[in-house]
Amino acid sequence: MIIVLKPKISKREETAILREIKRLGYRPHLMRGVARTVIGAIGDELSHQTLETLLTTFPETVESVMPIQKRHKLVSREAHPANSTVTVRGQVIGGKKVQIMAGPCSVESEEQLLTTAAAVKAAGATILRGGAFKPRTSPYEFQGLGVKGLKLLAKARAETGLAVITELLSEDHAELVAEYTDIIQIGARNSQNFQLLIAAAKTGKPVLLKRGLSMRIEEWLLAGEYILANDNPNLMFCERGIRTFETYTRNTLDLSTIPIIKKESHAPIVIDPSQGAGRADLVMAMCKGAVAMGADALLIEVHPNPAKALSDAAQQLSLEMFARLMTELKPFIAAAGRE
Amino acid sequence: MIIVLKPKISKREETAILREIKRLGYRPHLMRGVARTVIGAIGDELSHQTLETLLTTFPETVESVMPIQKRHKLVSREAHPANSTVTVRGQVIGGKKVQIMAGPCSVESEEQLLTTAAAVKAAGATILRGGAFKPRTSPYEFQGLGVKGLKLLAKARAETGLAVITELLSEDHAELVAEYTDIIQIGARNSQNFQLLIAAAKTGKPVLLKRGLSMRIEEWLLAGEYILANDNPNLMFCERGIRTFETYTRNTLDLSTIPIIKKESHAPIVIDPSQGAGRADLVMAMCKGAVAMGADALLIEVHPNPAKALSDAAQQLSLEMFARLMTELKPFIAAAGRE
Amino acid sequence: MIIVLKPKISKREETAILREIKRLGYRPHLMRGVARTVIGAIGDELSHQTLETLLTTFPETVESVMPIQKRHKLVSREAHPANSTVTVRGQVIGGKKVQIMAGPCSVESEEQLLTTAAAVKAAGATILRGGAFKPRTSPYEFQGLGVKGLKLLAKARAETGLAVITELLSEDHAELVAEYTDIIQIGARNSQNFQLLIAAAKTGKPVLLKRGLSMRIEEWLLAGEYILANDNPNLMFCERGIRTFETYTRNTLDLSTIPIIKKESHAPIVIDPSQGAGRADLVMAMCKGAVAMGADALLIEVHPNPAKALSDAAQQLSLEMFARLMTELKPFIAAAGRE
Amino acid sequence: MIIVLKPKISKREETAILREIKRLGYRPHLMRGVARTVIGAIGDELSHQTLETLLTTFPETVESVMPIQKRHKLVSREAHPANSTVTVRGQVIGGKKVQIMAGPCSVESEEQLLTTAAAVKAAGATILRGGAFKPRTSPYEFQGLGVKGLKLLAKARAETGLAVITELLSEDHAELVAEYTDIIQIGARNSQNFQLLIAAAKTGKPVLLKRGLSMRIEEWLLAGEYILANDNPNLMFCERGIRTFETYTRNTLDLSTIPIIKKESHAPIVIDPSQGAGRADLVMAMCKGAVAMGADALLIEVHPNPAKALSDAAQQLSLEMFARLMTELKPFIAAAGRE
Repeated sequence: MIIVLKPKISKREETAILREIKRLGYRPHLMRGVARTVIGAIGDELSHQTLETLLTTFPETVESVMPIQKRHKLVSREAHPANSTVTVRGQVIGGKKVQIMAGPCSVESEEQLLTTAAAVKAAGATILRGGAFKPRTSPYEFQGLGVKGLKLLAKARAETGLAVITELLSEDHAELVAEYTDIIQIGARNSQNFQLLIAAAKTGKPVLLKRGLSMRIEEWLLAGEYILANDNPNLMFCERGIRTFETYTRNTLDLSTIPIIKKESHAPIVIDPSQGAGRADLVMAMCKGAVAMGADALLIEVHPNPAKALSDAAQQLSLEMFARLMTELKPFIAAAGRE
Repeated sequence: MIIVLKPKISKREETAILREIKRLGYRPHLMRGVARTVIGAIGDELSHQTLETLLTTFPETVESVMPIQKRHKLVSREAHPANSTVTVRGQVIGGKKVQIMAGPCSVESEEQLLTTAAAVKAAGATILRGGAFKPRTSPYEFQGLGVKGLKLLAKARAETGLAVITELLSEDHAELVAEYTDIIQIGARNSQNFQLLIAAAKTGKPVLLKRGLSMRIEEWLLAGEYILANDNPNLMFCERGIRTFETYTRNTLDLSTIPIIKKESHAPIVIDPSQGAGRADLVMAMCKGAVAMGADALLIEVHPNPAKALSDAAQQLSLEMFARLMTELKPFIAAAGRE
Repeated sequence: MIIVLKPKISKREETAILREIKRLGYRPHLMRGVARTVIGAIGDELSHQTLETLLTTFPETVESVMPIQKRHKLVSREAHPANSTVTVRGQVIGGKKVQIMAGPCSVESEEQLLTTAAAVKAAGATILRGGAFKPRTSPYEFQGLGVKGLKLLAKARAETGLAVITELLSEDHAELVAEYTDIIQIGARNSQNFQLLIAAAKTGKPVLLKRGLSMRIEEWLLAGEYILANDNPNLMFCERGIRTFETYTRNTLDLSTIPIIKKESHAPIVIDPSQGAGRADLVMAMCKGAVAMGADALLIEVHPNPAKALSDAAQQLSLEMFARLMTELKPFIAAAGRE
Repeated sequence: MIIVLKPKISKREETAILREIKRLGYRPHLMRGVARTVIGAIGDELSHQTLETLLTTFPETVESVMPIQKRHKLVSREAHPANSTVTVRGQVIGGKKVQIMAGPCSVESEEQLLTTAAAVKAAGATILRGGAFKPRTSPYEFQGLGVKGLKLLAKARAETGLAVITELLSEDHAELVAEYTDIIQIGARNSQNFQLLIAAAKTGKPVLLKRGLSMRIEEWLLAGEYILANDNPNLMFCERGIRTFETYTRNTLDLSTIPIIKKESHAPIVIDPSQGAGRADLVMAMCKGAVAMGADALLIEVHPNPAKALSDAAQQLSLEMFARLMTELKPFIAAAGRE
């Protein structure tokens, strides 16, 4: 850690700070600069207590305390220089092929799901998405079909061979959801629900971790660390838009996360343009941008009749729009050197 | 709902939209304006499907769809015009007295907790706060004492007569935590963990619902609705700072929530300046502002030795600072016509 | 406008509101809904006073007032359904060719500028960027070469044939800057400096309008309206990143502005990934995404020796990096059906 | 500056970095830590070039570069430990008395202004606010009376003895506005229009600098530095709300700026709750909070007939509401130990 002292402090005050740094397990190293004296506190920040307490203990003499170690370990590129990949039903996420995860926001009925599954498979998707348990802002909105939805997903998988991804909302459902799905999705609202992260990790199933609405990159990496630290190596990050002042779009899709996650971590990065935009008419352009920037997979909401959808109607693509999207994406996938 | 049509649409297109509105259960009412034609769709928005799907069904003709009903019901001032109050161990929150909830960020040891409890009681606090289960951004940080922490809280309560508030992190702990605490706290990271909200509500204990880091007022009210809709009338809202672009403070404490919650809801509003500022030196001024603006209670982090705190060291007040705060607050409490 | 009334208001209150609406020049149209009564106020919102004052005049009876007309006119797609283009020195922005504007953040010396100009031209750029007047957060930082910088830009143009873009900082410099540049750039900090917008428009030179750090789409369109309403048809919008809570990148580049500006306006959209990311290592991916999503031009900071740059050193590409970028962009430009 | 190196770099790479640091004018000081090697670069950061370029020059070896000096000087508490005050027409801002600046958003007519001036004076205000030049988001909105408005302000001052504050929008008007006003206001949209800041400073009139919509504290202090560095000691900071994701209020009034500005700077801090809330019904509570937290002055929009106001109608107080506010504020002013 780096401790910056205020100007004009006495020798006695300086000594007191140095003593406290030693007491907290660090070896202090003094540097007298032109405008400020700076102390380098040598020691492993991850195994010792933070020195930020110095700000409270010495409010008159300590100006700022800056950690220098990154707090994420297993999730970092340093820990695992090569890309890691996640394989479900023979499909590799994080490899050469850009994987397409598509399906309805919510599983609503057998017909709705099977129609969608067949159509997205025909258009080139390899993974079927669909919510069985839905987190809803209001208690009066449709909360998903629950177990019945899970069974329909399993049926769709059996019929099409598509792998399945669905959201886990409750620790108590971890075993249940893991029984039916190939990938567990952690939603944006639960991205720092650490108990849920641990429960998801312990099922052993691959985990797709959405970025929270106001999550900084470092917090997202640390949330991912909860998965890896609980002995589950199959982690994927998924950007789905952050909350900003802009109201034109539901969220602001931060595509810079693609090169950033690639730089900081070895785990695959997936983009969800449907949540990001909240408007079907913007999804097409966002998918092209995501693929061009190196996304490993896309997660797209598709519904046979968006106007009748029980949730997030405004952002789901129709089957025709999805088929057209898949066609239009091809040259960009090729340009990116992917399949 | 109000549907705004784009200019220059044909009679045939208009008819199609009107038909769809009827099909979705609303009675359309056409108004031809100077620049736009607007349709009022008459029907209960809370029991019918949203018309926002019209944006997808008629992308070329529908410009915007605006709901007009507020989505929260039980939590609204309309539903309960008088202030509601929450009573714990004889202390009324939301009444004439400004209640002070104080204690350490984390319960760390018997000595730490009992010392703090005695000191905050002596200074005028009526409720003891302390985290037994701690949500931590990194899996490698101190996660709380768990059940042992709960037992220490109960012991402190027995010795001092202070009521107790502590955070619930996991649905699986709802019964356990409810057994020891007087108030269940839902933290900012779990403010839209709806399963946890329901589990907390069902314990029957009063619930203090912190605002999420990027939660809009309407979403906060709707999260509160989850408590009331699950038959628990003892809800308190707690502002603890929102995430903004500013980095000087850890969060931006939004004190305007005090008059806003008072206007929109009947439930008490509590202010947590410790989380809001993340810096002990700003807590004093924020408490004064909160009391002047009508806060029903304050939630303040106090530690006998902040420099040795195992979590959030930089924002905890020492016992001396807390006693001074309580003295300095008095004239503002009087000015606000409170006790 | 749409006026939503609170529930349970008296006939007399309703009449008073209707009278006030008429007085303000609108024709009221009453709709009784299930949960609320709604009034449609018919009249041109752009030429009449806003009815938002009803919230103040009738605080007990009016719940909300919603405008339905968009406030931008000349800049809108409605006003000009075809794409508009801007032509400088034979280069068309907004046409089939993706134009590349490249050059140093600041003009620092003749050698620096001419070296860069020759190199970016060789790599395929058609427009030379370079700041002569620089807005700096601190008064103690390098403020640009001023007129000397403008003259160097003119010299570089004479030698290479590249068109020139440079920032206008002061109304008083409008004529001066217009004399030397082909495109006037309005920076993010001045995006709502309306006097400067008017002065820039009046020079008759094409104007590139950067989005302000916290500018909503609607405000950006309205700022563009200031250019068109002052008889200058040559407007370009330029996204350069917005300010969010994220601190990993300097700003959050909002690439969704590409399809949004294309949808709402006829003017070209330019992307500035250098300011957006603040880090040279992210610029490459962002350029690919921008081109894939349909950007009409890119504005890229390039410096012959970024480490010695007098401003924004961390985000400028070296000449070699720029040449590599231009090569790597080619397949994405082709995939987007552009040149 | 502190330079953090990546792990596992070679001796040769380290030497290259040290050489470059010396070349840029700093004296490097090496500290080998447990997880990272850190270099302290000793030298005055304000007079030397930033070392952030090392990130670009050595992308494979330098992990981060952290400045340790604050960039503001004259504006800082360090430079001037006592509070500074601004005196206009015998009224001291920053002294014991909480000054109230009140008046209409825009000057609209002689009657409107004189009525307001007399009423706010009678209620206890000492400074009259009123916009003569108005910055408007749309070019089609009322832009103020201009010179005629300035003359009316002067007339109101002559009649009431109130000092006057009005906004400066254009460098070209600096002399003109200074001729009529006692305090020059720099609005939020122009808070980083540095040419305007310099022009305002040079008039010698006191300057009230509003915080920009997305301005960090450090940037605000540096904008203030532009005033002091141009030989004008009469600077006041004014918080008027920042832009966040919240849409319930127009802006989020950040009252924590009161203790923060007091801590970092010697200049007075003024709060504008009218812009901050955008709703008259929230202004009352915000004024109480501001006074309790130590604001030196309040800037409040008051209009004899808010419903007919030509700008910002929804947020202006009526004369009666203002008189009531002044009465209700008294006990809080007393509690704060002010007059």
